[in-house]
Formats: sequence, C-alpha cells, structure tokens
Amino acid sequence: MPEAVAFPENAVQVAEILRLATAHGFAVTPRGAGSGMSGGAIAAQKGLVLVMTRMNSICRIDADNFIGIVQPGVVTGGFQKAVAQYGLMYPPDPSSADFSTLGGNLAECAGGPRAVKYGVTRDYVLGLEVVLPTGEIIRTGVKTAKGVVGYDLTHLLVGSEGTLGVITEMTLRLLARPETVETLSVWFGQMEDAARAVSAILRAGIVPRALEYMDKNAISCVKNYLEGGLPEDCEAMLLIEADGSFGETTEAVKQIKKVLADCGGRYIESARSPEAANSLWKARKAISPALYTYGPDKINEDIVVPRSRLPEMVEKIRLMGEQTGLTMVSFGHAGDGNIHFNIMLDKNNPAQFLAARQAVDAIFDFTLALGGTISGEHGVGLAKASYMEKEISPEVLALMKRIKAAFDPAGILNPGKMRL
Amino acid sequence: MPEAVAFPENAVQVAEILRLATAHGFAVTPRGAGSGMSGGAIAAQKGLVLVMTRMNSICRIDADNFIGIVQPGVVTGGFQKAVAQYGLMYPPDPSSADFSTLGGNLAECAGGPRAVKYGVTRDYVLGLEVVLPTGEIIRTGVKTAKGVVGYDLTHLLVGSEGTLGVITEMTLRLLARPETVETLSVWFGQMEDAARAVSAILRAGIVPRALEYMDKNAISCVKNYLEGGLPEDCEAMLLIEADGSFGETTEAVKQIKKVLADCGGRYIESARSPEAANSLWKARKAISPALYTYGPDKINEDIVVPRSRLPEMVEKIRLMGEQTGLTMVSFGHAGDGNIHFNIMLDKNNPAQFLAARQAVDAIFDFTLALGGTISGEHGVGLAKASYMEKEISPEVLALMKRIKAAFDPAGILNPGKMRL
Repeated sequence: MPEAVAFPENAVQVAEILRLATAHGFAVTPRGAGSGMSGGAIAAQKGLVLVMTRMNSICRIDADNFIGIVQPGVVTGGFQKAVAQYGLMYPPDPSSADFSTLGGNLAECAGGPRAVKYGVTRDYVLGLEVVLPTGEIIRTGVKTAKGVVGYDLTHLLVGSEGTLGVITEMTLRLLARPETVETLSVWFGQMEDAARAVSAILRAGIVPRALEYMDKNAISCVKNYLEGGLPEDCEAMLLIEADGSFGETTEAVKQIKKVLADCGGRYIESARSPEAANSLWKARKAISPALYTYGPDKINEDIVVPRSRLPEMVEKIRLMGEQTGLTMVSFGHAGDGNIHFNIMLDKNNPAQFLAARQAVDAIFDFTLALGGTISGEHGVGLAKASYMEKEISPEVLALMKRIKAAFDPAGILNPGKMRL
Repeated sequence: MPEAVAFPENAVQVAEILRLATAHGFAVTPRGAGSGMSGGAIAAQKGLVLVMTRMNSICRIDADNFIGIVQPGVVTGGFQKAVAQYGLMYPPDPSSADFSTLGGNLAECAGGPRAVKYGVTRDYVLGLEVVLPTGEIIRTGVKTAKGVVGYDLTHLLVGSEGTLGVITEMTLRLLARPETVETLSVWFGQMEDAARAVSAILRAGIVPRALEYMDKNAISCVKNYLEGGLPEDCEAMLLIEADGSFGETTEAVKQIKKVLADCGGRYIESARSPEAANSLWKARKAISPALYTYGPDKINEDIVVPRSRLPEMVEKIRLMGEQTGLTMVSFGHAGDGNIHFNIMLDKNNPAQFLAARQAVDAIFDFTLALGGTISGEHGVGLAKASYMEKEISPEVLALMKRIKAAFDPAGILNPGKMRL
C-alpha cells in the first residue's frame, strides 16, 4: 500500500511532485491501469503512487504523416479504435489492450500477438515528453519518420519500467490499416507438431500477423468460447491471422493451410465471419484470467527462445509438469518464440510452492541455455527481479545502475524494481 | 591526424586498449570504413584510431531463427549477399553499402532508401557484444525475437556514434527475402508535384520499399547512367521500388502508377530488367560523389520533415538557392521526409562560405519549425555538432553528458563528437 496517491493532470504537476520527491526523498511509483504482469506499478517502497489516468487525451492523429500524439493515460484499445477511423492502425495489441494504457505499454515495452509481423511497442515510439525525477520536463526523439540527433533516449525510456522518468506525452508511429484480415484455427495431435508448424510457416517466407499457440490445458479452460468445442484427439491449437490486401491475404492463407496440412495439422478452419474470428480471440485473451480454475494461485512466466528451439522448450515444460505433479499451462506468441508458461498451485502449500519455484528455476536455466531470455514482454518489475542476475551480468547491472543515477540521483522513481 | 592506429583482432585486444586509454587518458576513435557523412571516424582530439576492419567475420547465419551474428568490420553489402544465399534479407541499405561496415552503420544508425518500408539499422539490432571504455566486455540485448530484461542498452548504443562503447559483435534480425522487386521511374514538371505524389502514394495505404526523390541538378550530374537521358520539361524524378510476392508487387505497382498519373507524373516506366533497375540505382547512389561537378566543395545536409511538409521544404531550399546564388541540389528518401540537400561552393571564397553557412542556418530553423530534425541518418559527429543545440535542449544535453559519463568516466571514447 502506498502512503499517498496523486492524479496529476499535466506535466507541470508531475514535475512539481517529482521535484518534491527528490528534495524530500520519498518514493514515487508511476501507474497507468495497474494491469502489468510483473508488478511494475506496485509501490514496493511505499511513498506516493502517481496515477496517470487523468492525462488521457488523444492530442492529435495526423493521418498525412502517420503519427498520433497522445497522453499516457489513453487506453490502448481506445487509441486503436480512434486511429482506425482515419484508416490507420496502431499495431501493438497486448492482451490487456481493452484496459491497459499506452503509458504503461511504453514503460513495459508491451508486445502481444501481432509482434510476429509488426514488432513491439518499442517499434512504434518516435518521441516522448518526459518528466525527469529531478523535475525537468524534457523532449526526446522526433515527430518524423527518422532522426539520429544525440543519444536515443526515447528507446532507453521505453521498457525502463517507470524507473527513469514519467512519460507525459508520446508521439507514436501509425501504419495504414490493412484491407483485410483472415483468422485461422488448426489443431495438432502433439504439441511438438504445433511448434514445428510455426517454424515451417515462417521458414516458408510467410509472415502472418499472429501465430499463437495454446496447449490443451489452456484451451480447456476457455472451451466455452470455442464453437464446436475441443477435439478429443488433440494436444495443441494454433491461432493464425494473416492481413494485407485481399489478394495478398488470400495467397498467404492458401500457403499457410498447405504448410499446416504438411505438418499434420487437423481441423484447419478459417473463421467464417468477423464475429467468429472475434470469438477465437476472446478465447485466447481469456486464458490468463481463466487459468484459476486449475488452482488458487499461478506463477506466470514469459520466456522467449529462438523459434527453432520451441519444440524442446515445450517438451521441457511438459516434463517439469510431470516431475512436479503441478498443472503447467502454456500458450503464447509462438511466432516470436515467446511462451507464457503458467504453473498452477496453492501458495499456502509449502511443498507445492517449493516445487513450483524449483520448476521456474529449471525452466529459466533451460531457456537461457537455449539462447533465450526470461522476459519477452512482461518486464522484470518485482516478479522477476530476483532472477535478473541469471541473464544480466554484474558489469551490465552496474552500468544500468549508473544510468539510473544519471536520471534519478536521489533514487526516488519506482525504487525496488528491476534490481535497480 | 591521429597519433597512432591499432587494428584489433578480437574483443580482448579492444578491451586492453581501452583500459590503457582510460588509465592514461588518451583519446580513442573507433573506425569502420571511414565513410561516414558527419566525421564520426575522425580523430578530433588526436590519440588513437581503432580500426575495426580486421574483425570482419560473419560468425553465423541462422536461417531458422532469422538472425545473423557478425563482427563489426563486415561490409554491409557483403552481408546482404551472404544472407541472400539463405533466402534472407538484411534490409538496411545505405548508399555506402558496397564499402561501409556494419559496425559503422550501427554506430550511426544508418538509413537508406529502404527505410520507408523496412525501417533503419536500429530496427534490425537485437543484441551486441560491446567493450566499455573502462575495458569490460559486456553483452546487451538478446538473440531472440523479443526481450525486455533491464534497460535497452542495445538501442542506446545504436546511433551513439562510437562515444559509449566499441561494438565487437552484433546479432542482427533478418527477414525472408521477398519473392520479387519491381523498380519504377517517373518524372515531374515541378518539384512540388513530385513531393505531393509521395504523400499521395503513402496516403493510399501503399508502402513501396523505396520512394526516392531527385531534383534536376541531382539528376543532371548522373545523367550518363540514365538510358534515354533527361527530359527537357521536367524538374524532378522519383525512383520507386515495390517488393513482396509476385501478386502483391504487381498490385502495388498498378496502384502506384495510377496515383502517379493522377499527380501529374510523366514518363512513368517500370525497369524492364534487373540490369535496368540496377542502372537506376547506380545513378541514385552516384549522386553524392558526382556533385563535385558543381563546385569544389559541398555542404551535405540530412534534414527530415513530416512527409506532408515536403513541398514547403523543397520550395524553401529552392528559394535559398535563388537568394544566395549558390547551386543547391536536393535528393533523398522522400518517403521518410528525409532530404539530402547539398550546397555547392568554393570554401576559399569567403562570401560564398558565409552565404552557405547562413543558408544552412535558415534551412535548419525552417526544418525545426516544420516539426523536423536536422539529421535523419548521417549523425551529428563533427559536421553537425555546432547545430546540435538548435534541436536538443540544455536539459537533454546535460542528461546525455551524464549518460556519457556513466559509460566513459575518463571521456576517452571519440571525444569532441556530438557536443559530448
């Protein structure tokens, strides 16, 4: 629990608060919707929570130059809808898009299903207005397609989890909206076959805009969303989406279906209507909250491995489930090699808790041994802080601390996160 | 002239040199091919030049995971050819690709004609091995499609112009090679019409992979490359390239031709063979060196404006030419709003020199007033150091200096660049 909460309405108010915090040494934790996955918005060292939701204006959508200028409290999904009216698209689409804010998305460098084609939040940020912990209001980056003057502070701030500055305005890159989207589902007898199909699609030079994977446990808890239910003989499902012009999309879908069939895909089906496609996505996005049917607590991870190593990773997670006796659920952005694996448990059961922690440790070690990373899009925050040193060397951590000090000499901004 | 030159062969040798430099306080200037446009590789404060060209191995091309791991001295064009053999593409394609190195491209965040569709060097860097000025060999970023653990040091280093660390290995993202490419040329009676056509193409939702603009002066000095010569009645040319699957490309070219005709384009022609396309690109890439036919010296700038402001910018440059009586040449990446304007002069003529400097000043002020930036891809280095404060506020410059100190406490790495 924080000791105080402030709801600033402009950058000057943010600056006044941060200046006070630096002068008096109290902690400030910036917060958007508070829906992050790694605890970034939690007031770990008490102090003040700075809730940015009143700064929620879409300042400008410039359709000629493909940019949007927004305040941090704008809800991502609302922004997506607003730009769609101009024939434009803001590609990043985290599963939380209906409620998470753009400021939070930037602070965590949010990803989502479309990253396989369109990249992550980082790839859509051109420039920022930021308040430094010492109270200066600065501008970074550009409002143009390119720019290389000075250090790239913009991309240093993206993904810095609210530890370096408070974003008060952002200039985002937009794309032309594709003419059409087609959504496919396909089932596989074995998880490994699904993982191999993912590689095969990308290796064929096809870039779907989404290439999502769900194992049987993941699908089972959202089966009510799925017309026709769950095939008995299958262990995994892929949810695939292609977009572009009509011709392009039709061609891509044809090629994808051929690859899927070659890889042993069963029940390959295109969604027959936008509503049917929507229902598939509702199922996908409902997985994370629905998992609690398997246990009162979950440990939710966000590992990434090189795509070709997905079958090994999937097998490792299955094995850890067998060894620990705990329910393991995995789903996620297979096209990026980014798997959300979840361990379901009762945290009050010490044996389960210990087994789960050991499984996380083993899976992280395996991930890193495969050349992967322990977080693809959720960030470190509190949840992964104790694992950060598995991936980041002492020299790099020391450098990050010096950078933190260059922004925040008094250490008042979101202390206790990311080991910084 | 530097006082010494070293040709390291591995990261450990680089580390030993930098450790010595920090201990004894001598300047070290990292250098690739030395072909940068802003003087980044010049030993401004003497000391030692660290030539990275012996570290020129392509360590690995991983076609399953779409990554390449390379040393900094690899020539960009050589890498492009190497990945093409695997059916892959490394999109960044600066005009210097035949001789510039990937290390230099990263240090400057090189752009090039394909940025309009594919982005710049920054967008293809996943992770780095870097030697810090204090001698630590560190790794940043990931070798996977995504990753958000800790601060994004990778993208802070890209574009830092060799002032923060020496890159000794880089992990680059690759794409599947498009099935086909089609190259078009089109002429316009007025420069403003060409600028408007650029906006119209992008506004129609078409994203060509290149959308290059050349004014009459630029074309004139490379006319020997152009089959059929230079139409008498035209002031500007666009060079446009679309890529993708056969179907996609055909469709895009059809749409582009329609937009061009609607905007007053004349002599709209597709290159009839890869050789013909190549010849158009040879002309485009030859402009910069060929300009010396207009005068013994040139001032070469690299401004970017919002794309919709291109007609105003082009008009401003024309006016400045009239006012000063100096030959102004402009060409560049119109699709990004990125214009290379060149002022041709004799620097030994004080009146010309003064007029040219005043024109640069006026054009930079106008660029910034339009919401632009003074460098899109060439960097600041020495050439633009004295203009940096036009764009970067004192607070931001002070922050950049603190970041510089966090990496390089003794200030030995590429001193005198970027005002840092």
